[in-house]
Amino acid sequence: MAAERVVVVGGDAAGMSAASQARRLKGPDQLEITAFERSRFTSYSACGIPYWVGGLVAERDALVARTPEEHRARGIDLRMRTEVTALDLAGQRVRARDLETGTESWTGFDHLVLATGARPVRPKLPGIGARGVHGVQTLDDGRRLMDTLERVEGRRAVVVGAGYIGVEMAEALKLRGFEVTVLHRGAQPMSTLDPDMGGLVHGAMNAMGIRTVAGAEVDAVLTDADGRARAVTTSSGEEYEADVVVLGIGVEPRTGLARDAGLPLGDSGGLLTDLSMRVRGHENVWAGGDCVEVLDLVSGRTRYVPLGTHANKHGQVIGSGVGGGYATFPGVVGTAVSKVCDLEIARTGLREKDARAVGLRFVTATIRSTQTAGYYPDAAEMTVKMLAERRTGRLLGVQIVGGAGSAKRVDVAAVALTAGMTVDQLVALDLGYAPPFSPVWDPVLVAARKAVTALRSAGI
Amino acid sequence: MAAERVVVVGGDAAGMSAASQARRLKGPDQLEITAFERSRFTSYSACGIPYWVGGLVAERDALVARTPEEHRARGIDLRMRTEVTALDLAGQRVRARDLETGTESWTGFDHLVLATGARPVRPKLPGIGARGVHGVQTLDDGRRLMDTLERVEGRRAVVVGAGYIGVEMAEALKLRGFEVTVLHRGAQPMSTLDPDMGGLVHGAMNAMGIRTVAGAEVDAVLTDADGRARAVTTSSGEEYEADVVVLGIGVEPRTGLARDAGLPLGDSGGLLTDLSMRVRGHENVWAGGDCVEVLDLVSGRTRYVPLGTHANKHGQVIGSGVGGGYATFPGVVGTAVSKVCDLEIARTGLREKDARAVGLRFVTATIRSTQTAGYYPDAAEMTVKMLAERRTGRLLGVQIVGGAGSAKRVDVAAVALTAGMTVDQLVALDLGYAPPFSPVWDPVLVAARKAVTALRSAGI
Repeated sequence: MAAERVVVVGGDAAGMSAASQARRLKGPDQLEITAFERSRFTSYSACGIPYWVGGLVAERDALVARTPEEHRARGIDLRMRTEVTALDLAGQRVRARDLETGTESWTGFDHLVLATGARPVRPKLPGIGARGVHGVQTLDDGRRLMDTLERVEGRRAVVVGAGYIGVEMAEALKLRGFEVTVLHRGAQPMSTLDPDMGGLVHGAMNAMGIRTVAGAEVDAVLTDADGRARAVTTSSGEEYEADVVVLGIGVEPRTGLARDAGLPLGDSGGLLTDLSMRVRGHENVWAGGDCVEVLDLVSGRTRYVPLGTHANKHGQVIGSGVGGGYATFPGVVGTAVSKVCDLEIARTGLREKDARAVGLRFVTATIRSTQTAGYYPDAAEMTVKMLAERRTGRLLGVQIVGGAGSAKRVDVAAVALTAGMTVDQLVALDLGYAPPFSPVWDPVLVAARKAVTALRSAGI
Repeated sequence: MAAERVVVVGGDAAGMSAASQARRLKGPDQLEITAFERSRFTSYSACGIPYWVGGLVAERDALVARTPEEHRARGIDLRMRTEVTALDLAGQRVRARDLETGTESWTGFDHLVLATGARPVRPKLPGIGARGVHGVQTLDDGRRLMDTLERVEGRRAVVVGAGYIGVEMAEALKLRGFEVTVLHRGAQPMSTLDPDMGGLVHGAMNAMGIRTVAGAEVDAVLTDADGRARAVTTSSGEEYEADVVVLGIGVEPRTGLARDAGLPLGDSGGLLTDLSMRVRGHENVWAGGDCVEVLDLVSGRTRYVPLGTHANKHGQVIGSGVGGGYATFPGVVGTAVSKVCDLEIARTGLREKDARAVGLRFVTATIRSTQTAGYYPDAAEMTVKMLAERRTGRLLGVQIVGGAGSAKRVDVAAVALTAGMTVDQLVALDLGYAPPFSPVWDPVLVAARKAVTALRSAGI
């Protein structure tokens, strides 16, 4: 029997995890794997770029988990600097262009794996394409930003957006000695949190010397005579001088090819798959990573959650399927953690507006505690907000803002959400306690106790 | 209607949490609360003693969550330095002796709350009562140890036992500049872990300059002419010079009064209660904290797990019941976290021998990872061992040894154990990921993946 042919489009987390896992299950005599990657890098940690930029990670190559050579040594035919330009699903082939030579050719497949990732949102504004304006989605983006940072003479940085990328880049630029201004549209930074919790982030960032500007609608990047960015202006007429501008306003799925091929996309433009990561309605087309929507287990809806950790899991699941095994990706609960200097930020499940949007009624409880016993050295404040469904008492979401050791505690809530636990069940959880690690009542459990009381007061 | 009378025996975590919660639900006109405490302290963190001894916590009083005066201000009739000497269940009264005056008197009750705690195991060996030999169970014990440490001239400390208290005291004494030798009976320190994981603790302690001696059966404490401890000898004939000796060989429930009164005790000597923390067979006698056994939700057996975090929950549940409300303590999964210098140690669920003891067949998986992304500064090694039941794939236990940020990750497994999750379900968990917090595959999930593979190889 001839080997089955697998074509992978995109050589980062999802694509190369899929290729590697498929290869683990079937050797080259059974499975012929070809992977196409536009850039110069494979299997790298895009999430690590802010730490490289900030100088915490010295070498770019530390972010590369596996090089093209390593993949090839495992029997994967990896074509770097090669962009797939068309999908012919009926003909079971893809067209790819070698970006160095311009040559185009077709490659046939039995299984197609789409792992085309995301691209940074880049609003169509005057000057947005100027030199000195950077996204930080790919390692190539990171390299270009580093070049700029090493060349610029001034020390003023403007970050547009105050989500994960925005706050992480604010920290990175501050670590490099820049005066950092973060412009964001909402009332508070970190709109992945409710505004009351975002307010804590706002206060802490200002206390660190990072300026934040709320309600800022960027309308142009002004350039100097050389065409380099020199300032950012907002619709309210303000002007923020900038020697470098970093765009951290989120990403969108890179699914143009998939759309052209008639594959099903969700509201965000992400591909829709089944639980085994097969594109809906297509037995031999798989998709994963930052180009797909995923099922949110709490709201029951699909949504777009581009995160490296999901991409790796998707790749594992796809590789198992392509390799003749069985695995599924059941969905997410919306967990995310981040930090800006000493402040840790975490969330899982639904925010107030998410819960309302799907018709859930809920109570909230917010408590302040410390991450260690209050008397332990460097005990730092930690605020936990919890949402619980009325009547059932089911946990709906948790948000945490606090000092070192706060963020990963959100994992307790992530598991509880997955298991469908009530806040009453949470109160009784047997979590690790010792003074260097937690107060005797873990802050997540204190929040659960308060949520139980709130449910009672709400009269169910 | 006359106020109901509540008598609480023991004024630390469980007893005073119960009194406080009952008081929250019912005022003094409805509930008359009397509490007896032998020592000079209430509501203190015994778990904090090693950090006070080590100098990380400057003031003893920082360990006191609520003073006698604060309890009295809330309408609790608290009798300090007063020891309950008999329980008359039929007559619904307790006899108590004022330790200052020697006066004895009887107090009647409608509800009796037993929160008599634990006492350190003190083997009957020659010299064990000598000056310079210390337990660290109560704040009084801690104060006596501090007096000794301030007075001794030598710098040699011997710690007997290498469980939580033993390793925490080893750290504390090292921080105070002592040369520390830890004598322990087993093949490895931390017998709350499987020996392979205990071996990692052993290696790390030695690397920190803490000497550990395995298989050491202490048979005497030698004293000098003044009756002060000067050395510890073992049954193999070794002699370890010691200017101070700390006993960290565990505690046992203090249930002499309960036994005399005919109340039901488990194998460990701890009181047996129902889920509302009522002593079995006694409608109006409640018990909690370090004097009770609790249900282990993984093995289905009761066992003795003296920990402050459980004591506080028991108190909350008892106080709710006594105050006319409803709450339960469903049981534990056996979570514990600890540290010795930079090394973090955690466990939850069953060890190999625990699983065997209850007839479970299982596979194990052990993986090494880092607690942050491998490229992040100060990424430290973290080892995770996981047990999963054959056939069902149900998670049975997790043990973790690693650098800063390792221990509390055991909470993920604690919640999963409570929810009865399989290791397959674990693999898909949506845990927080960002480079400062975790590799892209959280180490607990990597262990789960390996356990899934081990289950498959085991042919179920």
